[in-house]
Parts: sequence; C-alpha cells; structure tokens
Amino acid sequence: MKTLTVRLGRRTYPIHVGTDLLADADLLTPHIDGRQVMVISNNTVGPMYLDKLHRGLQRFDVFTHMIPDGESYKNLDVLEDVFDRMLEIPCSRQCTVIALGGGVVGDIAGFAAACYQRGIPFIQAPTTLLAQVDSSVGGKTAVNHRLGKNMIGALYQPRAVIADTATLETLPDNEFSAGLAEVIKYGLIRDPEFFVWLESNIDALRRRDHEALTHAIERSCRNKAEIVAMDEHETDIRALLNLGHTFGHAIEAATQYKSWLHGEAVAVGMLMAADLSRRLGDLQERDVERIKDLLQRTGLPTHPPKEMTPDTFERYMAVDKKVVDGRVRLVLLKRPGRAYVGDEYGFKALRDTLAAFQMAV
Amino acid sequence: MKTLTVRLGRRTYPIHVGTDLLADADLLTPHIDGRQVMVISNNTVGPMYLDKLHRGLQRFDVFTHMIPDGESYKNLDVLEDVFDRMLEIPCSRQCTVIALGGGVVGDIAGFAAACYQRGIPFIQAPTTLLAQVDSSVGGKTAVNHRLGKNMIGALYQPRAVIADTATLETLPDNEFSAGLAEVIKYGLIRDPEFFVWLESNIDALRRRDHEALTHAIERSCRNKAEIVAMDEHETDIRALLNLGHTFGHAIEAATQYKSWLHGEAVAVGMLMAADLSRRLGDLQERDVERIKDLLQRTGLPTHPPKEMTPDTFERYMAVDKKVVDGRVRLVLLKRPGRAYVGDEYGFKALRDTLAAFQMAV
Repeated sequence: MKTLTVRLGRRTYPIHVGTDLLADADLLTPHIDGRQVMVISNNTVGPMYLDKLHRGLQRFDVFTHMIPDGESYKNLDVLEDVFDRMLEIPCSRQCTVIALGGGVVGDIAGFAAACYQRGIPFIQAPTTLLAQVDSSVGGKTAVNHRLGKNMIGALYQPRAVIADTATLETLPDNEFSAGLAEVIKYGLIRDPEFFVWLESNIDALRRRDHEALTHAIERSCRNKAEIVAMDEHETDIRALLNLGHTFGHAIEAATQYKSWLHGEAVAVGMLMAADLSRRLGDLQERDVERIKDLLQRTGLPTHPPKEMTPDTFERYMAVDKKVVDGRVRLVLLKRPGRAYVGDEYGFKALRDTLAAFQMAV
Repeated sequence: MKTLTVRLGRRTYPIHVGTDLLADADLLTPHIDGRQVMVISNNTVGPMYLDKLHRGLQRFDVFTHMIPDGESYKNLDVLEDVFDRMLEIPCSRQCTVIALGGGVVGDIAGFAAACYQRGIPFIQAPTTLLAQVDSSVGGKTAVNHRLGKNMIGALYQPRAVIADTATLETLPDNEFSAGLAEVIKYGLIRDPEFFVWLESNIDALRRRDHEALTHAIERSCRNKAEIVAMDEHETDIRALLNLGHTFGHAIEAATQYKSWLHGEAVAVGMLMAADLSRRLGDLQERDVERIKDLLQRTGLPTHPPKEMTPDTFERYMAVDKKVVDGRVRLVLLKRPGRAYVGDEYGFKALRDTLAAFQMAV
C-alpha cells in the first residue's frame, strides 16, 4: 500500500492506494467520529463490494443507500432522495458518509455530505480508475443541471480516500479506457516524463498489468494532490486540470450525459485543445499526432459525435465554468507536459478547430 | 454608520449598520468582482427597496429574481428555481449574488451562491430585524426539509453585510417582535448587562426608537460576530446561539413553518430552556419570571401551540442538529447572561418541562 498526503492545513487528508484495502478497518476507523455510517453506492458496484466494506465496519451502525448507476442520474432529484433517506433514518450530525463507487457516486455522496446539516464527515472509496485518479482527489462535488455539467456543487474535502485497486478487475473496458484519459491528462499538463512513460506502457496498462497500474494511479494522484495543495480554490494552477474539459463537457451536455463517458469526452476535448494550440503556434504538429496516437492506442475516441456542430459546441461552452464575463478561457498546450490557461486566442482559431473536428467525422 | 468586522482570516468581512445604506455604491462596489450582479429578493420586499439598491449598482449588469415570501418556501424546489434562472441568463462564476430581504431570502440566496458553480461571491442586505441581528451574521445558509428545519445547507461567508435600519420602518409588528426575540437571546446567553438594558428599554425598542434600535442591533451583531470569530464551525461556543432553538424548531416543524414566526418559536423555546434549567437547579425561579416578563412585554408568545404534546416535541427534536448519537444536547442557562450546552440532564426533567408547557395552555 502507498499513502499520499494531500496538504490542506486543518483539512489535510490521506490517499491510500493498494490492493484489498476496502475491508481494512485500520484504514477506515480513524476517520469515523460517531456510531453511524451511511454507505452510498449504486446497484452495479454495491453488490460486488458492500460485503467487503462491511467487514471493516463491524463496530458501527451501517446504513446503505443505492442510487441508480450512470451520469444521467447525477442530478438534484437523486440528491434529494439521499437527503430523504438520511433524514428518515435519521442520520445525526456525527454520521460519516462513505462513497463506494465511481465518480457519480462520489460526487453525489460528497455533495450530500457537504450539505447535510451543513456538512458531515465523508470518506471516498472510489471503485473506478477515473474516480481513483481524478474525482476522489481535490474535494470537488457536484450534480449536473440540464443546462450544464457540475453546475451545482461544493468544494468539500474527504477525511480520507481509500483507492482499492482490486476493484478495477471488474471494470468494463470502455470505463477503464475512459479512466486512462485522465491519467494521460496528468502527463500532458505537467509531467512530460510520465507522458513518455505512458507512450511506452499503454499496452501494459490496457492489459491491467498490476505493476503498471499501481505506478500510473500513484503518479496521477500525486500530480493532482500537488496541484490541489498548491491551490485549493480553483484559479490558474488548478484550472490546468480542466484540459479538454470545456470541449468535453459540451459533448457530454449535448448528448444528455448518456452515450459518452466523461473520459471519452475529455479525450476528444484534449485533442481539440491540442489542435487549437497548434493553430496558435504553440504546439508542434508531430506532438498533436503523438497525442492522437496515444489516445487511439488507449482505445479512446478522437472525434466528437456527428451532431456536434461548431454552433452546438459554442452554445454549451458558453455556460461552462471557465467563462470569465463572456470570454471562454481554455487550457492549452505548449508541449506535452506543459499546459497554460489562455483567453487571448482569437475566436477564429477556435472556430477553425470546431469546424475541423466537425468535418473530420 | 457603524462598521463591525467579523474576523475569519481570509474570509474576514464587514457588517455596516446605519440608515439609508442600500443605495451607497461605496459600500457595495468593493465587494463585487465581475460585471454581473444577481439580486435575489421577494415580492414583498423587492418592490420597496429594489430601486434604492439599483442606484448603487449602475455600473453593473443587474438581474433580479423574486422568490415567494415566507418560511414555507425555504425549500429545495424554490432553490432549484434560482439555479434555473441563473443558468438561463447565464450567470458566470464572477457573478455576485445580493440577498435583499429577510432570513428566508438570505438563506436561499446564500445557499444558492454557495452551490452555484461551487461558490460565487455573495452580499447580504438584510431588511428585517431578525435577519440583521441573526441570520446575516455567521455564514449559515440552508433550506428546510419536511423532516426538519435547515437540514440542507452550507456554511458560506458573505463578502459584506449591509444592514440598513431604514428598512425596519415598514416591518410588521409581529415580525419586529420576532426579531427582538433574537436580540433578547444575546442578552441571555452571554451579555448580562445587555439583558438588563433590554429590561429598561424594551418599550423604546417597540416604539422603534431609532437610538435604542441602533444600540440593540449593533450590540447583537457584535455579540454574534464575537462568537462566530471564536468558533466558525459550530462546536460548543457557537452552539450557545441555539438557545431556545431546539424547542423552537420542533414548534416550527410541527406547524409546517406556516403559522409561527421563527422568533416567536424561539421565544417559547428560550422560556422552556429556562424552565428546564430551573428544574436542574441552575436558574432561580425569579429569573425565569424576569425572562417571561420581558418576552411578554416584547409582544412574544410564552406557550407552544396546543397541538405540541411532549411526544410531538420529542419526535421533532430527535432529528434536530443538536443530537449527538441519540442524545439531545440543549442550551441551558446558569443565569440571565450565562448559558452552557448540556447533555447530562435527566430525561425526566425534560419530560417535566414538556408536560408543564402542555398543561399550561
């Protein structure tokens, strides 16, 4: 087991990465204050891992609440069901929420913990690669709105993150590849050495080679934890984590969060950001090709769906959180391993990128 | 104008108290980052003060959103309407929310600001006595749930509080008295000199004597600000602010937040807490009478509604936030001006108080 520490003053917390950690009472118990534990999971993941988790929680009164599986259920209605359940029990202010599942479970459970009686303790137990390397680190919680993704939420830190790599064995291939999109992102935005390592080891990762996977998760979490520690509230440094996300969120929103996985949309978004960076003279053509090649070898899409016209993109990008008083700020690349936040690009270059990715379909 | 400072490190903010402050651009402008301002108000208060507020905001793009007037509308549905409106505009992440109204407007607008895109700037412009001395100080925001008051919310600090005493001139008598209940609370929990001052000046306050009112608001805000600065996250010190609130919330919840004003319920709750304190041997009988006398002279109720049986009280008190793993913690009095948080009292004494207040009707 490896343990990283996310340094956030009084709210500093550990991330434990390793195999078969879910049933480890010694990891969970120090972070639980009261008698009550509310495990929030979904019907896909819950049946597989709830028993394991219960073994580490025998000293507590454990309640469970299952939410429907899928990004389309990450909304205020499902959140309200969580509140209803917790108040019917009733959960006290010392109840600890454990999120057992992927990013959707983590986002809803975390936001519920942030809001329930104005904030109760919260532990993340992510069971997907995406959640382990991304959504469980940094304290972002949210639900979607029909007019945009993650529009309603809170910045709320967990007490601990328990990333059990054994849970990845049952992960479907497309979800696994989608998680790798975020892993690749860390290489692209700030870790050139890791990007090169990924180019050499992507096949091993796709075979779910344990050693390669451990390295990739640990390195990803470390990259994200370093950024979060530097800049808890999202300004320029933390904004780099949004590479590909403005384009990606538009794809997810336009397809009603149904047909595209988050990581798949981010993969396309990263390539679009790379294309725009090339048009601005920042990124070499061959580096765009390296990025495209790595995404393809990862089993990720490199084109948006047909219905994404430039107009559709612009409409959905306009309500994205990266808008500063009417200007869309985008994360762009200088080279693989070096990103920056730009809002000085001409809108023509952006239109050209959007048009190129429409025609390319 | 008097200005207090609530010291909370990076989130330190000023409270300005005085007459005709709403139109003062110099007070508002320093706290607005972007171009957009979203004023949230209700149909009672909005028509009276929106024009005044607009005069101070001529440099900005000002949007308004009206919510229904009343505690029964402090719920997730009304909150969702706010999100819909803000996303339809769309409000950016630099938009500043101004809450123009009483506690309900402040709670909903504050919670909306806390959650919208995970947090945007927020200014409180309270227009009721209750909001000026209580809900606009301390950063508590929330909505109610059918199973309990303020169950869903966030601790989120405003950038500034503008308490314009001119707005109190139009306040109905019952709301004014309800606000005085919270003023009396500050005297009871930590300011014995202020309690004595209130006994001497309650008639002047009820006449809305400007000088008396200014003193009472300033002293109340100072008391609350001192507590909040000592203890931003609610533990024992801040919990003292809940004197009378556990009983009071039960009354409000059992009457569906419709027929009782918050301050009226708190007034009864404070007297019930005083009665329980007397049974525990902490408070003198004559001090209970002084408290009852002051509440009556303030025009406040001193008995719960007939339907509040001991069982009803206990049912609603069980989901109150003051529950620690099954034990109800209550704020009790040693004497007027000295409160403490107790959970060592016997349940018999509590039952006796609940029964006494049922029979007394």
